[in-house]
Amino acid sequence: MSKFLQPAVRAITPYVPGEQPAQKYIKLNTNESPFPPSPLAIKYSAEAVKKANLYPPLDGGKLRPKLAEYLGLGVENVAVTNSSDEALNFIVKAFCSKDSPAAFLDITYGFYPVFCELSGVPYEEIPLNEDFTVDVSRFLGIGKNIFLANPNAPTGLSISLEDLARICDSNPDNIVVSDEAYVDFGGKSAIPILKDHPNLIVVQTFSKSRSLAGARVGFACAAPDIIRDLYTVIYSTNPYNLSRANMYAAIGALEDDGYTKANCREVARVREITQNRLRELGFVLTQSEANFIFCMHPEFSGKELYERLRAEGILVRRFDKKRIENRLRITVGTEADMDTLCKTLEKIIGRR
Amino acid sequence: MSKFLQPAVRAITPYVPGEQPAQKYIKLNTNESPFPPSPLAIKYSAEAVKKANLYPPLDGGKLRPKLAEYLGLGVENVAVTNSSDEALNFIVKAFCSKDSPAAFLDITYGFYPVFCELSGVPYEEIPLNEDFTVDVSRFLGIGKNIFLANPNAPTGLSISLEDLARICDSNPDNIVVSDEAYVDFGGKSAIPILKDHPNLIVVQTFSKSRSLAGARVGFACAAPDIIRDLYTVIYSTNPYNLSRANMYAAIGALEDDGYTKANCREVARVREITQNRLRELGFVLTQSEANFIFCMHPEFSGKELYERLRAEGILVRRFDKKRIENRLRITVGTEADMDTLCKTLEKIIGRR
Repeated sequence: MSKFLQPAVRAITPYVPGEQPAQKYIKLNTNESPFPPSPLAIKYSAEAVKKANLYPPLDGGKLRPKLAEYLGLGVENVAVTNSSDEALNFIVKAFCSKDSPAAFLDITYGFYPVFCELSGVPYEEIPLNEDFTVDVSRFLGIGKNIFLANPNAPTGLSISLEDLARICDSNPDNIVVSDEAYVDFGGKSAIPILKDHPNLIVVQTFSKSRSLAGARVGFACAAPDIIRDLYTVIYSTNPYNLSRANMYAAIGALEDDGYTKANCREVARVREITQNRLRELGFVLTQSEANFIFCMHPEFSGKELYERLRAEGILVRRFDKKRIENRLRITVGTEADMDTLCKTLEKIIGRR
Repeated sequence: MSKFLQPAVRAITPYVPGEQPAQKYIKLNTNESPFPPSPLAIKYSAEAVKKANLYPPLDGGKLRPKLAEYLGLGVENVAVTNSSDEALNFIVKAFCSKDSPAAFLDITYGFYPVFCELSGVPYEEIPLNEDFTVDVSRFLGIGKNIFLANPNAPTGLSISLEDLARICDSNPDNIVVSDEAYVDFGGKSAIPILKDHPNLIVVQTFSKSRSLAGARVGFACAAPDIIRDLYTVIYSTNPYNLSRANMYAAIGALEDDGYTKANCREVARVREITQNRLRELGFVLTQSEANFIFCMHPEFSGKELYERLRAEGILVRRFDKKRIENRLRITVGTEADMDTLCKTLEKIIGRR
């Protein structure tokens, strides 16, 4: 730490991303898609970089209207961002402050508290129920800006759109974010209820279902005044927030929606097969709607399972956090990778 | 503006980027390179996007050590960022605050005040001399965090490394940023004097000399403790700040340094030819060391010249700002484009 670092930044605990190992592992630790980007995404991106001596178009270029049309929204309802993390960070920056605090679950996406600390925003953590479901009543009329990963990570569980609508209606002076990074694998997007909720913001990403984690493209959908505010922050930070290569990769992915949908179906199918096999091995798990499995084994600590899987060349995610320290979050990979995972766990657990 | 927008953000005046027109212009308004990215940059980027279902490597991946080696620095002296704007923004975030204000020139890169407003940092604007040179004495012992574009934009003029060193030494409790976006076209980088100045940060970009404005890659060089602090902010914002496609485009550009250097020589050659022709037309100009020309004509307002060039299909940049409202900033394009520019100006000005 240099002597120049300001006190507010000294106090931040940065986000800890899942490990990106140099060696070869079966990598089931950061919820990436096991499928490559759409051939169209690869093609458009490779074309676009030829013109990369020029700044990218502003405001997401052709991606923004294309995305709006795809989502059934107006262009004025959509902001495209350099990852959904950027969207979340800018939402905190725009709509939260020392005087307008945030609220989110105690077990949820680890970046919410980091973004709040970065912007000096106080936050309240609402505990999940024992079974990792959400006590919706705790958010009703809370009078804070609410961030809900839906489906939630790392639990894989969703709240209903009816509950989300109630949360919005009971906090009319605050924004409510439905962070839908994993929605395409079995959740229900709140985009159709946007028009009835002027304080609702839906955030999604191209990282998971669209196989573009490496391209860093996300977006936020909301009422036009909220989107304009987000563009104020974008224009105060990095107006050219989407590079040409990434913008066009996203356009390609959007045009190849059949590919995305087929991949999502396959992930959901493999998830169900894997969850059943894990249950047979004695694992306890949530009924995940995301592209990961959240599980524990009553006879093994999370740390032991994590380490033994790692020694066998399989990387999964665990969290040093009370209540979930014995749980593993395992990304749904290809059917072959998940078969290897299950066989390795059979060996570790000692049942065949 | 939504009712949710916080007062601090309401107060920000966002940056106004140069126009990115949909129609075809000879585009001399945003200091882009007229040359396409290196074939190696294009090739590596196109390869990299095939793996974009996976998150990019953290910390700039292989780009960071490659860049450090190229610069003659240690890896611990370099942070790679999603554009040099990101580097500047994170420097403000890390090292400036309400209690640790900033100082920069009154006529300089327009993003400095925006970043300060975004982070609630007070700033002082030091007036340039009448001839647009820098009154270095004004920065000596000023006790603020100093941001110097060197060469400065839009003037194209540099201060010497000796003066920069004096500024560093006289402000030991503050950081001094040498923002060298344009340094490769004729300036002198402060990288060689980094080791003697623990408060100096050099910021550069791949946007200009390396023909990658559309890929958004920049970097900061400084003492290891400063670089660690910047990574604290990166890890609190977007740890995967460089996408795969952009990271590998930058690696390609770096490997093809001969291409970059040849392009820089060509830009400098065309700049000198163009400046001479403009002088013959009666223009008054600075002796630019950057890839743009900063000029005015005593008989024409900046607005008139801007509009008449635009009507003829040539886009240049002007600024609605006192002291430079009659100046144009004209990017150095290809020799052919600059010939068209000069001929068009001859026509407008009425001398042949």
